[in-house]
Amino acid sequence: MTLTTVSENRAFGGVQGVYRHASAATGTDMTFSVYVPPHAAGASLPVLWYLSGLTCTHANVTEKGEFRRACAEAGVIFIAPDTSPRGEGVADDPAYDFGQGAGFYVDATEAPWAPHFAMRSYIEDELPALIAAHFPADMARQGITGHSMGGHGALTIALRNPDRYACVSAFAPIAAPGQVPWGEKALSGYLGDDRHLWRAHDAVALIEDGARLPELLVDVGDADPFLEQLRPDLLEAACATAGIALTLRRQPGYDHSYYFISTFMAEHVGWHAERLAR
Amino acid sequence: MTLTTVSENRAFGGVQGVYRHASAATGTDMTFSVYVPPHAAGASLPVLWYLSGLTCTHANVTEKGEFRRACAEAGVIFIAPDTSPRGEGVADDPAYDFGQGAGFYVDATEAPWAPHFAMRSYIEDELPALIAAHFPADMARQGITGHSMGGHGALTIALRNPDRYACVSAFAPIAAPGQVPWGEKALSGYLGDDRHLWRAHDAVALIEDGARLPELLVDVGDADPFLEQLRPDLLEAACATAGIALTLRRQPGYDHSYYFISTFMAEHVGWHAERLAR
Repeated sequence: MTLTTVSENRAFGGVQGVYRHASAATGTDMTFSVYVPPHAAGASLPVLWYLSGLTCTHANVTEKGEFRRACAEAGVIFIAPDTSPRGEGVADDPAYDFGQGAGFYVDATEAPWAPHFAMRSYIEDELPALIAAHFPADMARQGITGHSMGGHGALTIALRNPDRYACVSAFAPIAAPGQVPWGEKALSGYLGDDRHLWRAHDAVALIEDGARLPELLVDVGDADPFLEQLRPDLLEAACATAGIALTLRRQPGYDHSYYFISTFMAEHVGWHAERLAR
Repeated sequence: MTLTTVSENRAFGGVQGVYRHASAATGTDMTFSVYVPPHAAGASLPVLWYLSGLTCTHANVTEKGEFRRACAEAGVIFIAPDTSPRGEGVADDPAYDFGQGAGFYVDATEAPWAPHFAMRSYIEDELPALIAAHFPADMARQGITGHSMGGHGALTIALRNPDRYACVSAFAPIAAPGQVPWGEKALSGYLGDDRHLWRAHDAVALIEDGARLPELLVDVGDADPFLEQLRPDLLEAACATAGIALTLRRQPGYDHSYYFISTFMAEHVGWHAERLAR
């Protein structure tokens, strides 16, 4: 597994890197960013995954997320993957909410997406192995978070892999994609019309079907213009029924942007770091 | 003086705004950003100006500068102007270091720049009046900083207006533009070939000619690829001769990017806030 260094910059005493590799899962080159905080030689550090939202690449959170100070203080590696395969020969759609930039963290089974849109396998299997091989990461201590479509990704991946992540949080996640326009479009497009197959990619449905997490931290702005797509109320109800300790914070006046995310990022990093401490 | 709101987003308890207005100084529309931290009704807050570098608009530092947490904690308004006039009918040059995006904070006297390139008047006179009229700003408590070309702007504007700014700092400033390629190109292009006229726009020359500041904080990365354009050594020598208390920190491993700026931004905001406290 060869890794190409796109860029490395000193930041907050550590290194913010951007890397590219040929992905077997997607059959394309994939780019991701990793922030490695200052650390003692030979140290093995906990990892926080951040999955991004619609239209984003690794770059949005890397530039605007304001996670590095908190990660440097807590000694946490921060990983930001891309949101879909990209490039010539990869299927796309002119809409912002489907196709490239909108992989929804599923392995597509439908044409024309199936050949490359394998973001579930990429995030669950291929990229963790690459991180373990190339960075000073303690893969026994992983947390996961994400924003919007990436919040959906974080919740569903964690619910399907309950032993892998010690802690899970999200910013404005699409909590019930099977019940909202963004999700119905993406899941039907990538997975077909059998809604039973969508349930493994829907946090609320996974919880209804028995998946469990010990606790969950979710921030959402009460001025978010996409609340009808996010449905934090459905997540709240599902967690209440299932006995999942959800801390849902409706942040007054905040919207869906990185101004919202960056405001609460340090709290999320700190929350994960507490749970990832040895 | 009418102000158009381009965007306002809640961030760190305050409001990050972007605004546009018809500038009399430049004869164009100008865009700038203002972060107003949380504050008591009727409060009048100190102001920190941040002047940006080559190729930048207000947006670079607004998105990548990581100043909002520190400004919210200290109660400081943060203002980020554009770096030149822009638009149709405004002269430009294909180079990244001249023309639009590269105004160098001078009032151009040479053709074709003179009609619109009046960034000195814009930053020194017009924009402060606009800020005073539209924001809860205490204009008796102003500090100024900037990066690269904007560090040059911050230093020269402060040296020419020693009673206006209580505190001055810079990130990787072009300290002696009259002696380096970036500055020679810009100052000759905007002001003509009489080098005596350049001295009012050259921090080292201004200090040599008698301008004074009580103290100065400058950070520069020792891995900055543009050190030959920045010449912190000349600033250090001029300050030593003049008795200006310069704190020059050569930050090991840091480059010229916003990864460098954002790392030290909170320290600069805090340094200014201490000096701007009532």
